[in-house]
Amino acid sequence: MRIAQIAPLYEAVPPRLYGGTERVVAHLSDALVARGHDVTLFSSADACTRATLVPVRDQAIRLDPAPLKSDLAAHLSMLHEVRKRADDFDVLHFHVDMVHFPLFEDMAARTLTTLHGRLDLKDLAGCYRRWSQFPLVSISKNQREPLRAANWAGCVHHGFPPELYPYSAAAGGYLAFLGRISPEKRPDRAIAIARAAGMPLKMAAKVDDADRAYFHTVIEPLLQGPGVEFIGEIGDADKPAFLGNAAALLFPIDWPEPFGLVMIEAMACGTPVIGWRCGSVPEVIDDGISGRIVDSEAEAVAAVRDLASLPRAAVRAAFERRFTADVMAANYEALYADRLLDTATAGEAVVTPALLERAQTARLRA
Amino acid sequence: MRIAQIAPLYEAVPPRLYGGTERVVAHLSDALVARGHDVTLFSSADACTRATLVPVRDQAIRLDPAPLKSDLAAHLSMLHEVRKRADDFDVLHFHVDMVHFPLFEDMAARTLTTLHGRLDLKDLAGCYRRWSQFPLVSISKNQREPLRAANWAGCVHHGFPPELYPYSAAAGGYLAFLGRISPEKRPDRAIAIARAAGMPLKMAAKVDDADRAYFHTVIEPLLQGPGVEFIGEIGDADKPAFLGNAAALLFPIDWPEPFGLVMIEAMACGTPVIGWRCGSVPEVIDDGISGRIVDSEAEAVAAVRDLASLPRAAVRAAFERRFTADVMAANYEALYADRLLDTATAGEAVVTPALLERAQTARLRA
Repeated sequence: MRIAQIAPLYEAVPPRLYGGTERVVAHLSDALVARGHDVTLFSSADACTRATLVPVRDQAIRLDPAPLKSDLAAHLSMLHEVRKRADDFDVLHFHVDMVHFPLFEDMAARTLTTLHGRLDLKDLAGCYRRWSQFPLVSISKNQREPLRAANWAGCVHHGFPPELYPYSAAAGGYLAFLGRISPEKRPDRAIAIARAAGMPLKMAAKVDDADRAYFHTVIEPLLQGPGVEFIGEIGDADKPAFLGNAAALLFPIDWPEPFGLVMIEAMACGTPVIGWRCGSVPEVIDDGISGRIVDSEAEAVAAVRDLASLPRAAVRAAFERRFTADVMAANYEALYADRLLDTATAGEAVVTPALLERAQTARLRA
Repeated sequence: MRIAQIAPLYEAVPPRLYGGTERVVAHLSDALVARGHDVTLFSSADACTRATLVPVRDQAIRLDPAPLKSDLAAHLSMLHEVRKRADDFDVLHFHVDMVHFPLFEDMAARTLTTLHGRLDLKDLAGCYRRWSQFPLVSISKNQREPLRAANWAGCVHHGFPPELYPYSAAAGGYLAFLGRISPEKRPDRAIAIARAAGMPLKMAAKVDDADRAYFHTVIEPLLQGPGVEFIGEIGDADKPAFLGNAAALLFPIDWPEPFGLVMIEAMACGTPVIGWRCGSVPEVIDDGISGRIVDSEAEAVAAVRDLASLPRAAVRAAFERRFTADVMAANYEALYADRLLDTATAGEAVVTPALLERAQTARLRA
């Protein structure tokens, strides 16, 4: 198929530092190329991709040192360019929330829009209702809760190449916490669990400006006690060792996490995840195989004490079965096939008989 | 004419506290009604207007206590509603930068877009080039500098009802500074000028979070000396007395100010403005009548010493001639007439012979 991937312009594809959406778009684009598709990526010029790159800005917005920029103008210019070339593609896959809706109304059936963020924002329901002709993809089933009536075409979990986080057979002697320090990530819970379980905790955590007061008043005092090592923000290069050497990842969140990439990063290393029953967690963790889904600190402590029941090889196997980039690409391929069938039915001209056959095969498989 | 005014959703129309754009939309809408037009205002429901209100959000975004909101979704929903009703209007007047472009491409000639902000942002030129069919209005000539090639249909200075800032015949014994404390507003220059001229300075200034460091390190030490009174942020109710009792307003800016409402607020009170030759200042101040345009602190000090040469009645007269809401509405009316002539030429059906005649009269007058 001829597939356009339209990425946000905030971070490079993949990002230099953090940034989930652009990372997923990077992996998806490469995996679709590997599966034989003709993929065109619209993004900033600093992308690294196996797809054909259409650069629409000299660099990603967030790290661009220019003092005055306009996110909206940059995205609208990109979408104008996508529309000019829209006839070159069988399917257009957007990762930019809803900003593209007004430009692609006359070809909505040929588009797919993955929503990457939380959906419990006040203004979203009205907007998605007004443009309900656009088929949407969630990144977990739970993410849909605030927008159950929206036009959901599918649910595709994130994935990444299995070699990115190598399997590590031997568990280290510490628990890991990785993420931003913020009340909704509950770093305080992670500390309480580790202490109660009598196991050291290493915290690799970024502190944003918005969370500095919380860090100073709530978390810093907790770090004074024994057994907790705060190592600050770490880069991509350090994450495999940090996660792979841990006995388990603690994911004691208190918010509707739409996916939670770090859970599958840990699983890829063979490191089981102890996660709260919240947001996407029950969908991502195979309870008793790749980790434990818990409802309380007591359950989390019990899970830490019972880590021997979660063999690391089985954790890695769960990752390989469900969360590789190729699995993600195959799932999206089936949804693209749906789009092709829909548009072919609608009498549009872009679908050749060969493509149609391929699409029907994918639909049967899906 | 049947005119739609499309306001931003960030502040109420007019704003409860600060906010320039929504204030101008409020005055323009009321003045157009007073001139006999059929005006419909699209905005948040907390608007106070003589126009027919179409509320598209329960309240303005910035002061909405809801923790999670989406600016973009809110604006797109509003624009969707405007488009549904577009045939009810002869002219659609947008005050929302460029977010509406994709929805009104097929009726761009019937639209007018006033740009209210600075235009030297990295991504703007490309965006306005791609949607060059949309006629734009600047709020000063100088504002256009970074985008000289854009499709400028006119330039209309801001205005407000003359009774809002009553004329005050007697000058008080202090200089006034009113605005945000930020490096580009140069409160430090205001302090230096007042001290060199030997006249007290009163500073009514808001300190945003982003400017707190600048305030503490640069401005606070300067406040220790004599003759400067820092009175913090003041509301609309206190501004007429604060400006009207001043001998002059200091406006020593260091950035491309697109308009600068406070200059005409001072003028309405009869208070002359001493402004830097920067941004819109040379267009707004009638040099030697409503104030002085200066290039240096020495010139500013000389202007303070020579304030007797600027009679307050002449300052007020300059305001009444150029900057009332009715003057602004008349200027926009002429531009709306241009739109009517253009769309009539293009063979569209919405223009009646009576309207056409009125439009041609307005064009002759303009």
